[in-house]
Order: sequence, then C-alpha cells, then structure tokens
Amino acid sequence: MTANSPIHLSEVSESAKAEHLLLKCMSYGGLRDKEIETVLDLVSIKTYKKGTLLLREGEVSTKCYFNFKGGVRQYYLKDGEEKTTFFYLENQSITSSTSTALQIPAKHYLECIEDTTLAVMTHEKEEELYRRFPRLESLCRVEMERRLGQYQEMLANYMITTPEERYLNVLKYQPALLSRVPQYQLASYLGIKPESLSRIRKRILLK
Amino acid sequence: MTANSPIHLSEVSESAKAEHLLLKCMSYGGLRDKEIETVLDLVSIKTYKKGTLLLREGEVSTKCYFNFKGGVRQYYLKDGEEKTTFFYLENQSITSSTSTALQIPAKHYLECIEDTTLAVMTHEKEEELYRRFPRLESLCRVEMERRLGQYQEMLANYMITTPEERYLNVLKYQPALLSRVPQYQLASYLGIKPESLSRIRKRILLK
Repeated sequence: MTANSPIHLSEVSESAKAEHLLLKCMSYGGLRDKEIETVLDLVSIKTYKKGTLLLREGEVSTKCYFNFKGGVRQYYLKDGEEKTTFFYLENQSITSSTSTALQIPAKHYLECIEDTTLAVMTHEKEEELYRRFPRLESLCRVEMERRLGQYQEMLANYMITTPEERYLNVLKYQPALLSRVPQYQLASYLGIKPESLSRIRKRILLK
Repeated sequence: MTANSPIHLSEVSESAKAEHLLLKCMSYGGLRDKEIETVLDLVSIKTYKKGTLLLREGEVSTKCYFNFKGGVRQYYLKDGEEKTTFFYLENQSITSSTSTALQIPAKHYLECIEDTTLAVMTHEKEEELYRRFPRLESLCRVEMERRLGQYQEMLANYMITTPEERYLNVLKYQPALLSRVPQYQLASYLGIKPESLSRIRKRILLK
C-alpha cells in the first residue's frame, strides 16, 4: 500500500455522504455561500483503505485532514516498537502541526486503522483560502485556541492519571475505541503492556 | 498573597527592561510602528512576587501572559496533592486556552515560583487588537499552529518516554529547571516520586 493511495471503487457513496456532512458543518459554522463554494473547490474527499499510511516518519507533512468516517492512528517507532499516541475517530481534525508549520520531517506515522473517508486540504490551499477570506482565518485562529487548550489538557491529564484512570476515561469518553482498536494498540495508548491492560480490565470487572 | 497582586516597589527597572525586550521582540517579529504602539497601549508589564497565584482552579482565565523574567508553574490538585504539569520559564507564552476560549472554570493553578515579570494582556484586549489589526491575527494564527504542534509533540513525547528518559531530556533541553525548581516539583513533573528521582540521578552519575 503506498502513502495516500485512495480507493477508487465504491468510493462514490461515502464521498457523497462526506460532502453532504461537510456542507452541513460549514453551514452550521456560519460560513457564507461564496466561502463554502471555495472550500469545496479546494478540498478533496477521499476514502483510504485500512492500513494506508497517510504520513511516515521522515516525510514532511503537507496536508491536513478532517475525518468523516473511519479511524486514523498516530504512532511513533521507538527501538523498532510501535508506540500508539493518538486515535482520530469521526469529526476530528488530523494535523501534524510542527511538520506542516515548520516544513520539517515528521517524527511519527499516521495510519488508517479502518477504511477511512477524509476531507483533505493541502497546506498551500489552506493558506490560499485565508488570503481570499480573512474572515475564515479569524475563525480558524479561534478554533486553534480551542484545540491548543485541548492538547494542554490532554497532556496534563496524561501526566496526572494512572493507567487505570486512563482506561476508565476511555470507557467514559471514547468507548468506541474498545471495539475498534486492537488490545495491544489500546495498551500502548494507555502507556502499558497488554498484560497490564488485561489485569486492569479484570480488576474493574470484579468491582 | 492574593491573586494577581503586583509588586509596586523596585518594579520599575524590571518593567523597563521587559518593555525594552518586548519592543525588540515586536520589531524582530516585523511589527509596524502603529501596531507596536497599540500593543504597548493594551499590554501591561507587571512583576509578581514568588508564590503569587495567577490563576486558581475554579476561576475563569481572562488573561494571557508572556514571561520576561522568572518562572510560573502549572499544577493540578488531585486528592489534596499538587501535581506539577508544566514550568514556564523566560520567553514563553502562558495561556490557559480552554478556560479562556470557552470561558469555563480552569482545572489548574498557575503559581509564580520566583519573582516574575510578565507582559499581561486580557482576552478582551487581545480580541480588540485583532479587530484593529487583522494582520496581527494572521500572525497569531500561524504562531498558534506552531504552538499546537509543540503540544502535540510534548504529549506524544511524554507518552513514549520513561521517567529516566524524561529526566535526561530535562538535562539536555531545560537544564535551568534543575537549579530553579525544588526536587519534589521536578519529580512530580517527571511523573515519579522524589525517591525515584534520587535513584535515577544516582544511576546516571554512576554511568
């Protein structure tokens, strides 16, 4: 599977659904007709097969994504071992901001963990959009502040919680991960070995 | 010590130095004369005594800061115990983005760990600045993307490293913390107990 290889068969209906959703999001977000038209011009909607790598360590990220259907896993290779650090499920933006903003090689991988339908925009086209519609850059700046806050809180939250508390948080806030992600990836995401995850699950079931 | 209580004595020289630095930063950042003048109008430079709480859990954050001299610690109270999650030293922006952006109560504290000189801007004045100079909002959006990338990488980095590796990273990238921060706060920041930090330090000295 090569990076960024879209599925060409049976893509049409997922793309159409995604475009419909994108329209709804933009309209709900207060975008004007001309702005919506331009975004649709600059964005492409693609479906990637499970296993596709959207980004590899060492590559410079040139795109950002919005996930309509499916899942994308962020992982690092450390001493030959995959360390899962993030799962992007539906309605999440996927950015590799350091690599994109500074145009330096990424240190991580982005892998589709299911057949995944994404809105794709290149960094260049995003900049073009803001040049044409400064109002959208202003909306984006506000959204970036919100996302920055999310990452500040995720970092702090990871630092102050035990693996068991992190597992309970997944149960509460991201229960979809339990059925859509293999145990070894979930364990890695929680910062533990698969055996420890089994022990935590048993302990919780016995409570 | 009440929140936000500035020092009024011996503040002048630190404020003057900070204002000089601020001018240099803005000029280096390519800001135009009218923009610089307006920022100076909207920002205040204050020196806070060691121990001052800039923000408490439960308060809504209304300000952002830039640190010219001194240090600010972010911590959470969990079961009565302080969990240190961040140190902001010189030349760092200090934001509590979720609380500020969504106007909801913060979950953390911000404490000056030394006498600290900060540029202070309220959220309201920041928005006023962007209304008057959309070009600055554009610069801010780019800076936000860079900061978002930093937090994405800090989160991933914390997840994939051992406490010993984190300590080695502090030695390499934030050595000032070793002399400016008490051991129990540094241990908490690394996600370990003070005894474990002592063991790590001994092990590294013996290598």
